[in-house]
Amino acid sequence: MTSASEFTLPVRVYLEDTDAGGVVYHASYLRFMERARTELLRAVGLEQSKTFEQDVSFVVYGMRLRFQRPAQLDDALTITCVVKEAGAAKVVFSQEVRLPDGAVACTAEVDVACISLRSKRPRRIPADLRGALAGRTQPEVGGT
Amino acid sequence: MTSASEFTLPVRVYLEDTDAGGVVYHASYLRFMERARTELLRAVGLEQSKTFEQDVSFVVYGMRLRFQRPAQLDDALTITCVVKEAGAAKVVFSQEVRLPDGAVACTAEVDVACISLRSKRPRRIPADLRGALAGRTQPEVGGT
Amino acid sequence: MTSASEFTLPVRVYLEDTDAGGVVYHASYLRFMERARTELLRAVGLEQSKTFEQDVSFVVYGMRLRFQRPAQLDDALTITCVVKEAGAAKVVFSQEVRLPDGAVACTAEVDVACISLRSKRPRRIPADLRGALAGRTQPEVGGT
Amino acid sequence: MTSASEFTLPVRVYLEDTDAGGVVYHASYLRFMERARTELLRAVGLEQSKTFEQDVSFVVYGMRLRFQRPAQLDDALTITCVVKEAGAAKVVFSQEVRLPDGAVACTAEVDVACISLRSKRPRRIPADLRGALAGRTQPEVGGT
Repeated sequence: MTSASEFTLPVRVYLEDTDAGGVVYHASYLRFMERARTELLRAVGLEQSKTFEQDVSFVVYGMRLRFQRPAQLDDALTITCVVKEAGAAKVVFSQEVRLPDGAVACTAEVDVACISLRSKRPRRIPADLRGALAGRTQPEVGGT
Repeated sequence: MTSASEFTLPVRVYLEDTDAGGVVYHASYLRFMERARTELLRAVGLEQSKTFEQDVSFVVYGMRLRFQRPAQLDDALTITCVVKEAGAAKVVFSQEVRLPDGAVACTAEVDVACISLRSKRPRRIPADLRGALAGRTQPEVGGT
Repeated sequence: MTSASEFTLPVRVYLEDTDAGGVVYHASYLRFMERARTELLRAVGLEQSKTFEQDVSFVVYGMRLRFQRPAQLDDALTITCVVKEAGAAKVVFSQEVRLPDGAVACTAEVDVACISLRSKRPRRIPADLRGALAGRTQPEVGGT
Repeated sequence: MTSASEFTLPVRVYLEDTDAGGVVYHASYLRFMERARTELLRAVGLEQSKTFEQDVSFVVYGMRLRFQRPAQLDDALTITCVVKEAGAAKVVFSQEVRLPDGAVACTAEVDVACISLRSKRPRRIPADLRGALAGRTQPEVGGT
């Protein structure tokens, strides 16, 4: 099920992403999910290299992950990203890695904090960016 | 605080582990923690490449992570690993990544299932291995 | 300059690809270049996961690399791949990583051998695949 | 054969280093070899994170690699590093990845330039460091 507020990114599985167990290495899913968050942020106007110049950076401070089915070499995956909560200085993303047949390989809730790159301390998310993120929040009930 | 049942592995941070934010990339901590689990399993008699031959494999199916302070290039980290629960077909590990000054960079609870490499389905942990893992379980209260 | 026989793949630089020096980590270029080789092989009819079933695998046995200008976070790179030589059991690829402004970040010559996955020994490239690769060989002189 | 001027670093192969082909992923050898160069530099007095403060950085600008035999999961490898040439602003390293039985998995010649981190332009290697590196140069003939 795709909703208006769900961002998706196609990701191909290459040899670099797999391990000797014959499937995708578990930490590779974190790389895939970060690519989708980065592209969602780019889609709402945020270029990560520019946020470095503005002394704004986003850092992951919490993750809850479920690995349900392994992805394989050559799989054309879909990585989803939904803004679950957009706070003053933090954002919670809800993400899935979907297999070619639509089954879920991995789900995650990702807590991201906005920090000052210089001081490494939390700071407020710039207002325009926060507005754009809030606009992507998925309605709790019956939203789609 | 180190207890008798806590396994530790020293890990050095190299350039490969860092990112353009100037600190350790978040998914690198998962690689560090897997190295410590692998060495704990080796210490109790399990060589991962041999478990492949015995049709036994361990796969991560859940993780709960907290990233608290960033590790830096050249840091001499300590990765800890404690067996929190040793079930019939699964193990829960509790892990920390500690900075050179002893502060905690990252904590994780990691759910690992024993599977058959051939069928990719859950299977019981071989008895001797399960016994060895249970012997490393940390007492709940006043254990150290 | 793009020629008929030059295969190109767009690759975005994400945080995972960079290091604390602020630019792309040198080994990441090898990952990018392998993605392009994989897609070129797919374009000529070879799915890597299927070659495993056919007991055909391609392994890199030599590389000559020049790193000329660093790529940066968020760069939209172009990875090129040309078949320089298509032998009976080996292929030489010539590859470039190009920056958004067209400048070359990295060049490589990559020697790839066809092996039997079971025996791990060299074997002939299947005839249809070899023909398809030879068809992509770039003419030496005045080819475009 | 080990000589007085050969630096060695033990490296264990973990799941993160392997791929679905069942062996070590080719780009992982570059990570292993960089660890050995970093430790050699540390052994002669250079901490990489400190060189960043001194506006000195070393970047790889060329590599010539031969992959000869695959390393496997759990292998206890030895990574060697010899200073082949120590110039005013560049160093050439000669490196090997050795398997547990002593056979060579991979060899590389690595061209490293000293640059200013600020200007990103070449600069002279600090005299004391250059002296220390020159002291590790392996004699061409009959050196051991």
